[in-house]
Amino acid sequence: MKPNFSLRLRVFNLNCWGIPYLSKHRADRMKRLGDFLNMESFDLALLEEVWSEQDFQYLRQKLLPTYPAAHYFRSGIIGSGLCVFSKHPIQEFTQHIFTVNGYPYMIHHGDWFCGKAVGLLVLQLSGLVLNAYVTHLHAEYNRQKDIYLAHRVAQAWELAHFIHHTSKKADMVLLCGDLNLHPKDLGYRLLKEWTGLHDAYLETRDFKGSEEGCTMVPGNCYVNQKELERFPCGIRIDYVLYKAVSGLYISCKTLKTTTGQDPHSGSPLSDHEALMATLCVRHSPPQHNPSSTQGPAESSPLISVLRETLTELNLAVAQACWWATFAGYGIGLGLLLLAVLCVLAAGGGFREAAILLWSPSVGLTLGAGAVYIFHMQEAKGLCKARAELQHVLGRTREAQDLGPESQPALFLGHQEGDRAEDQ
Amino acid sequence: MKPNFSLRLRVFNLNCWGIPYLSKHRADRMKRLGDFLNMESFDLALLEEVWSEQDFQYLRQKLLPTYPAAHYFRSGIIGSGLCVFSKHPIQEFTQHIFTVNGYPYMIHHGDWFCGKAVGLLVLQLSGLVLNAYVTHLHAEYNRQKDIYLAHRVAQAWELAHFIHHTSKKADMVLLCGDLNLHPKDLGYRLLKEWTGLHDAYLETRDFKGSEEGCTMVPGNCYVNQKELERFPCGIRIDYVLYKAVSGLYISCKTLKTTTGQDPHSGSPLSDHEALMATLCVRHSPPQHNPSSTQGPAESSPLISVLRETLTELNLAVAQACWWATFAGYGIGLGLLLLAVLCVLAAGGGFREAAILLWSPSVGLTLGAGAVYIFHMQEAKGLCKARAELQHVLGRTREAQDLGPESQPALFLGHQEGDRAEDQ
Repeated sequence: MKPNFSLRLRVFNLNCWGIPYLSKHRADRMKRLGDFLNMESFDLALLEEVWSEQDFQYLRQKLLPTYPAAHYFRSGIIGSGLCVFSKHPIQEFTQHIFTVNGYPYMIHHGDWFCGKAVGLLVLQLSGLVLNAYVTHLHAEYNRQKDIYLAHRVAQAWELAHFIHHTSKKADMVLLCGDLNLHPKDLGYRLLKEWTGLHDAYLETRDFKGSEEGCTMVPGNCYVNQKELERFPCGIRIDYVLYKAVSGLYISCKTLKTTTGQDPHSGSPLSDHEALMATLCVRHSPPQHNPSSTQGPAESSPLISVLRETLTELNLAVAQACWWATFAGYGIGLGLLLLAVLCVLAAGGGFREAAILLWSPSVGLTLGAGAVYIFHMQEAKGLCKARAELQHVLGRTREAQDLGPESQPALFLGHQEGDRAEDQ
Repeated sequence: MKPNFSLRLRVFNLNCWGIPYLSKHRADRMKRLGDFLNMESFDLALLEEVWSEQDFQYLRQKLLPTYPAAHYFRSGIIGSGLCVFSKHPIQEFTQHIFTVNGYPYMIHHGDWFCGKAVGLLVLQLSGLVLNAYVTHLHAEYNRQKDIYLAHRVAQAWELAHFIHHTSKKADMVLLCGDLNLHPKDLGYRLLKEWTGLHDAYLETRDFKGSEEGCTMVPGNCYVNQKELERFPCGIRIDYVLYKAVSGLYISCKTLKTTTGQDPHSGSPLSDHEALMATLCVRHSPPQHNPSSTQGPAESSPLISVLRETLTELNLAVAQACWWATFAGYGIGLGLLLLAVLCVLAAGGGFREAAILLWSPSVGLTLGAGAVYIFHMQEAKGLCKARAELQHVLGRTREAQDLGPESQPALFLGHQEGDRAEDQ
């Protein structure tokens, strides 16, 4: 790479609000989105909530001349809703489906059926490897009484862990998506601390768009105003995050958001605002490298956020186990009822009542069985995240105790330490 | 690394057959396994089918002085059954749960409930990064009419893909486990071709153990002889596989298997045979490097195996969609029945019959709904694997058409190409 090397990367991110039959003006918005993307000709367009594969196929056809590469990440029952359009060839892709993702009996929320995930694209740009991630975490339906908090935190952990394990060879990492996390939320802090990613909104000196960088704003006619009544400016839950290995320096030259309106026609593209970032990648000597991850060097905030996450996961594991035990009693009761009904039916007494009660008893047993299975799976998923987190916490503490010299050995995955060996 | 550098790695792998209440002499076998592992003091012991976490905790306590590091991979409802004991500190770990893994209504087979997975451990040995993977793929219950073939092939693909994406920075890759694949099976070929892993049994010049390296042998008293009636020597389904980056050379100095008996007391440790490999890692100039992955250089066998896998996945996707459609009709029928019964009950005629048929109709609707959900998820999982595979197939063809010079650029993930740039 030449010393005066420079790479400009224009990135677009939007939660498209593409729920078939439910989202308003979907076809029109998809058409306008396609026109806009074609006109702007970004390097990468990362989209969430493209729930219908037909919409993806429509966009694919429409965007083919400008974005020859595209991928739709399939998962769960409905799908992850994630897709990507790229001006550059996609070298590789893969995805990780989050282990915990809401509750199947919360049908009206629907997240469980989506199979929320993180998608990874590997691209090669000017000889550099870019790992671009697109994701959409579990929605927040009630901030005051958020029953999905632990699931979203566990997803943020899995997202960070997936990035950590798959980006060790990457020169640049880009994460775009709807995190459903406010900038002070635990999941956001955990993700930033563990991956060392930088928030384009906080880093850029040239921001144009909605107040405080919000990506759901009251001025958007598709937004449910009730959801934002406690946030008069709106909320910032969609992000462009990035980092580079040491020796490289990424800066966010400009960041724009839409402001509740289509940049051209006036009508919004979605209920979320789009993010448009211009990133500039440059060669940088390791000593002047404010953009690269600091890894565990600043381990105190990391330890603090890991501890906070651990407390959250402990509570969630206990709750999942409680529900599994409760459902276990339900199964027991159902089986007992069935046995009693069999005896009654065989004995001749209360035969009619026994026959009538047979089906509800079978229903109780099967229903409780399903609840048991689900919450056992939830508990195992949360335990898995907790074990990974405990391990990282232990090693971060060791790294802190041993001082900065020993850190590369303790944190194999952190690019800062790894790359230093290469150079 | 010094030119005369040498690293010896002693590895143990066993499918422990540790099903609570069902596996014979489980407690005694776990005790003897612990004694054996303590006595032999391997670098790494990778175990499968440790279904009970109590068994893991028992082994952990017993092995603590010899193997200070250990991890149990939790997943699914029962668990993955995977665990590992290491003489060396574990730097990092993570896991990937396979997207497709049997059918929930095949309760007697139980694989769906286990949450089969691949576990990854990152270790640092003599300054080299070792990625050690442990896995257990879906069991094969009927080789003549194997309804799980596509799921196992998809798992082999996911396993290979997971290794590919997480080992880009590793110096050495080790994969141990019960693959439930015979050496000529599609899944085994796919795994080897796409990852470039070497089979310890085929590579070693010093093999001691069961005939043809079989890991389920008729001489083992716990083996169901009926399962092996078509294989008089037994079957080889458990493996130690490895590879190194260019510049390193791994050879399998010795490979031993148990032969249906405990190496000391005479009674077997499990219904599977244990594998014990001594690997030797040495510095090797890139031009004499028979151990490192050839990546896409030999792409013709890769193309052929990818095509074969694609055919298998296409069939499986069609079948999953057929079942989802069938279940969709079931839901429709159930809802229709419920509507008719409501009308009958409201009208006064056949009220008793309507009440009696109400529960079965609800049952039909819910049951068909569950089947629909499951097979839609299966279809999406298989489609995901198919899309990844199609992409790799496309790029492998491109690489072949363009000739060997262009291959590193087309295959970012293959270590051969990547490392060559570093050197």
